[in-house]
Amino acid sequence: MKSIKVFAPATVANVVCGFDILGFAVNEPGDELEMEMIDTPGVNIISIEGDEGKLPLDPSKNTVSASIISLLKKLGREDVGFNLKLKKKMPMGSGLGSSSASAVAGLFAANELLGKPLSRLELLPFAMEGEALACGHGHADNVAPALFGGFTLIKSYDPLEVIQLPVPKLFCALLYPHVDVPTRDARQIIRSKVLLKDAVTQWGNIAGLVSSLYTHDYDLLGRCMKDVIIEPIRSILIPEFDNMKELAMGNGALGFGISGSGPTVFSLFKSKENARKSLEEMQAMLNKLGIDSNIYLSEINEKGPVIL
Amino acid sequence: MKSIKVFAPATVANVVCGFDILGFAVNEPGDELEMEMIDTPGVNIISIEGDEGKLPLDPSKNTVSASIISLLKKLGREDVGFNLKLKKKMPMGSGLGSSSASAVAGLFAANELLGKPLSRLELLPFAMEGEALACGHGHADNVAPALFGGFTLIKSYDPLEVIQLPVPKLFCALLYPHVDVPTRDARQIIRSKVLLKDAVTQWGNIAGLVSSLYTHDYDLLGRCMKDVIIEPIRSILIPEFDNMKELAMGNGALGFGISGSGPTVFSLFKSKENARKSLEEMQAMLNKLGIDSNIYLSEINEKGPVIL
Repeated sequence: MKSIKVFAPATVANVVCGFDILGFAVNEPGDELEMEMIDTPGVNIISIEGDEGKLPLDPSKNTVSASIISLLKKLGREDVGFNLKLKKKMPMGSGLGSSSASAVAGLFAANELLGKPLSRLELLPFAMEGEALACGHGHADNVAPALFGGFTLIKSYDPLEVIQLPVPKLFCALLYPHVDVPTRDARQIIRSKVLLKDAVTQWGNIAGLVSSLYTHDYDLLGRCMKDVIIEPIRSILIPEFDNMKELAMGNGALGFGISGSGPTVFSLFKSKENARKSLEEMQAMLNKLGIDSNIYLSEINEKGPVIL
Repeated sequence: MKSIKVFAPATVANVVCGFDILGFAVNEPGDELEMEMIDTPGVNIISIEGDEGKLPLDPSKNTVSASIISLLKKLGREDVGFNLKLKKKMPMGSGLGSSSASAVAGLFAANELLGKPLSRLELLPFAMEGEALACGHGHADNVAPALFGGFTLIKSYDPLEVIQLPVPKLFCALLYPHVDVPTRDARQIIRSKVLLKDAVTQWGNIAGLVSSLYTHDYDLLGRCMKDVIIEPIRSILIPEFDNMKELAMGNGALGFGISGSGPTVFSLFKSKENARKSLEEMQAMLNKLGIDSNIYLSEINEKGPVIL
């Protein structure tokens, strides 16, 4: 009987000017998963901690198990099975790629236990399947950074092409305010048409941002972290968005934006101290308004899932 | 009495997915300018060759002289003047940045004769002024590559920020069909709103294209040379666009697109031989339809304007 314990990271998708195409992983928070391979077919969810009973235990409906079942089928390894214990160490529905982290943890662990038949790139479609089950759409901008670590660019969806970008040596400050912004709602308020001049501004920024990662010009990175299309609409769903942004920028943030479809907000800093100060000030401001929040501070994750 | 002779390159702007933000310079064609500095104020256009009498000789209305007059005023050097002889060695109104090349040649030559008081970056606004005089809008996507050489990204217009990207070792094939597509008309047929999903596709491609230049992955560059927004509309103004594209791609082009606002089309190749073959086949096809054309084949220009 073989067993393994793994960690998979939370991710920031829709990175400002990179709506639907740019994401990155963080070292904190993330999910932990214990898995054992068994000789009897089937994927069994033994326990889930930290989900407040919200995640389905039915293997065909749970993101983690469903994507592993697909993997086993594809590999023709339906002779074996797995027992899973998932520890959700991050909030769900927060815009931090919770379902992606779980799916990636499961696929990574299963692939390791099976003797690594697939590369990380080959695991991507299975993780996207899991994501589709959880969110109703199979976008890769959380899944890809969770799987590869670092900054990942989804160059195109059809055919699926992922580019791993250079990883900036920066600190990411995350604040998850305890308000409810379902992914589906956040998608529905976005307009289907945008002004060409705004699109041009956006592609100047995303092109500049990619350049800044290759040249390690983090001031340029900051100047490119502007979103004239999605943020003006989605930020109205997030309490005190403009005031939090002002606090972060006032503390030296290179840029500030919505993580995924929110309500978590993120900012990037050169200085860990400034990042911490910014998080504390934002949290104190929300506290005064009676809004609880979680805060996280870490470097950009470079490894994706790891064996613990 | 000091004099100088300079060359400034033609440029490809609106590089496929980089509408309004991405341009590059070519070694051929380009403009030549002879200039002498004189002790009497005023900029005098002694002669213009190759313009079929179309360019104004009035110094206040000519792109070259007007931008030099601005420069002298800004520098407080209205005590001196210049005599100019311009040799247009490229077609005008062709989508090859003809007015930019002339303006850049003039400013570069004047700056040299004055003892280089300004950097190339500092010359950019004066060149944009000249461009505005010629085209009715002060876009920088022809001017910047003509001035700096290579691939240039206009990260933003307000404030103006230009990023010089790595220069690919590729061959550019240009074909200018002798049909009339005024810049103003080409601008007017573009819709002011675009689908968000198309904008997302476009920014995935521009981000991937920038990445490909840093990693010298020219196959990726080719996969990113797709324009789902402007090309479908503007290509209808260019005779045999789809057939020319098919010929170029069939000969191994990495990508194919409209140069500036047309009617010139460009394609990028790894092989000079394939580029030449493609140009000859396209030209032969247009000949059969009674459409004359100019063809040019060169590497990407790395230097911008040079002293001859």
